[in-house]
Order: sequence, then C-alpha cells, then structure tokens
Amino acid sequence: MATTSILRLRPAPLTRGLFTPYGDVIESDGNPHYTINDGYAERFSDLAAIDVGAQEGQIRVNIFHALPRALPLPIRMVERHPLSSQAFVGMSERPFLVVVAAPGRTPLASDLHAFVTNGRQGVNYARGTWHHPLIAFATPADFLVIDRGGPGENCDEVFFGEGEIVLEAPTV
Amino acid sequence: MATTSILRLRPAPLTRGLFTPYGDVIESDGNPHYTINDGYAERFSDLAAIDVGAQEGQIRVNIFHALPRALPLPIRMVERHPLSSQAFVGMSERPFLVVVAAPGRTPLASDLHAFVTNGRQGVNYARGTWHHPLIAFATPADFLVIDRGGPGENCDEVFFGEGEIVLEAPTV
Repeated sequence: MATTSILRLRPAPLTRGLFTPYGDVIESDGNPHYTINDGYAERFSDLAAIDVGAQEGQIRVNIFHALPRALPLPIRMVERHPLSSQAFVGMSERPFLVVVAAPGRTPLASDLHAFVTNGRQGVNYARGTWHHPLIAFATPADFLVIDRGGPGENCDEVFFGEGEIVLEAPTV
Repeated sequence: MATTSILRLRPAPLTRGLFTPYGDVIESDGNPHYTINDGYAERFSDLAAIDVGAQEGQIRVNIFHALPRALPLPIRMVERHPLSSQAFVGMSERPFLVVVAAPGRTPLASDLHAFVTNGRQGVNYARGTWHHPLIAFATPADFLVIDRGGPGENCDEVFFGEGEIVLEAPTV
C-alpha cells in the first residue's frame, strides 16, 4: 500500500526577518520610535506598506470577529489578493496563526510557512502573498483589517488535498 | 473679586450618533456584518472614511504607545489636521477619552465635547475635526493609528487658558 505523507506545519514565532518575503509585521517591539504628545505617547511610525490603489481601489477599514479554529487544523486552501495588500491587527492581544507562501507561482504544499504572533503583532500581507484566511485559536478575537474596496477581481484561491497539510498547534 | 468659571467637560459614552459631526466610530457593535471564512469570521465592512490623499498624501499605519493621563485633566489645547483624517483603534481593549470640536472656525471652550469609549471602539477624526491628542487613562495602552504622510503643513493648534477647561474622569 502507498503511504501517505502529511505535511505538518509547525508555527514559528513571528519575526520581521522571517516575514520579509510575505509583507510587514506591524509591531512596536524593536522598532524606532519618538516621543510626542508632551511625553504621553511614543510613536512607531509607518509600519506597513499599504497598497490598495490599483484599478481605482480605495482603502477600507473593517473589523473581523473571528471564531477560534480547532488545532491541529487541516489546511485546504490559501488565497491571494492580486490587486492589494491586506493587514490584520489584533484588538485584544490574542495570538493568531499565519500560513503563507511568497507571491508568484501557484504554491505547492512545500512552499507554505506557518507563524504564530505574540499577541502584540499584526501582519500586512503584501500584494499577491498567498495566505490562509484568518486563524484565531483558543478564544474568539477581534481584528482590525485594512484592505481594498473597488472594481476588479481581487481574490485567487488554490486548493490542497484532504490530508495533505495539517497546521499544528504552536508549542507554548 | 471676579469669579473664574472653569468649564468641566464630562465624558459621555461614545455613540455613532453623537460622534457624527466629528467622524466615525470604528466598532462592530450594532453594525451590519456578514459571514466569511467558512463561518469562522464575521466581517464588519468599511467602518471609516479614511481621507489621506490630499496633496499627494500617503496612508501611514502606526502604533502609538500611550501613557495614562491623570484625571481630572486640564485641557490646554486641541489640534486639527487640515489635510487628512486620523484614526485611533485600541489594541488592548482599554477605554480612552476623546475631546473634540466640529471642523470649521477656531473652537471656543464651549464648542468642546468629551466622550469615553467602551474599550472596543476606535475613532476616526474627519479631516479638520479639532481634537485633543490621545488620552489614555488608568493604564498604558497601545493604539493602531491610521493617518497621512506627505508634503504640506498638516497640524493646526489652538490653545486655551490655564484653568479654563478641565476634563473630568468618566463616571463608572
């Protein structure tokens, strides 16, 4: 009998260095900042390359209320937005999981990488970055989402087989 | 002897109706939504009129780390951004205080209104809305801030006298 080989994605702690091929990590930790508001705020400026203007696109600011996924999670698809970036920033300090492949050709299972945020990190998927839809876990969580509204088809999807890829729970 | 009259601003609970003259309340509560992501998310779409394109402006996504202000707080100034909107969304479910006056002529003390968020609400100041800089209280808090980068002078300030206006703590 043929043996099936399941790809088990293990989420790595998210860092800007590791995420460079996919877009921006939106976080204050380790970023330059300066003091404003008479000392009552530190400003961490310009943390994401928002790219929504193609084909007369307009920026949209949205809230996604996400329900937790059970882990391990079978990964059956990823999508990309060929016309725009898309940013997700948590509103409640809950870690979430990110599954991505670099922009370009249709990804194979082996092109996927998984990350877990630290609860204070958002992500901005660069235009064309393949990504799984939002993955909250453990608890429901709200996210501020910055994306594009406007004309044109802005979502491509690619599907994987049943039992081909499983996303593991992050190690604590 | 002349008596001095201190204007005491008492923060009202923030609602979209009350905030209409000043911009948008960014919240899910009570807004229309639809299901996405195979049932794992509710999407509350297009919650803020982001207005940053004047004079070749570009959107900037920033994090402000705010220190708590002591209350009651003397209000000595408000500012406006004549070229752009500016949005503040909490990343840690902490209420914050908002002091505003409608766009238009230089505000008098009596034009100011104060609001307290419920911890799940952000605000988007419309272009030209007079507002006090970010007011966290009780604890430090992080905010995602969506504003404008680009050429041109984009901040006007107006000052009030010492002892003219005091922002009271919200009633619990």
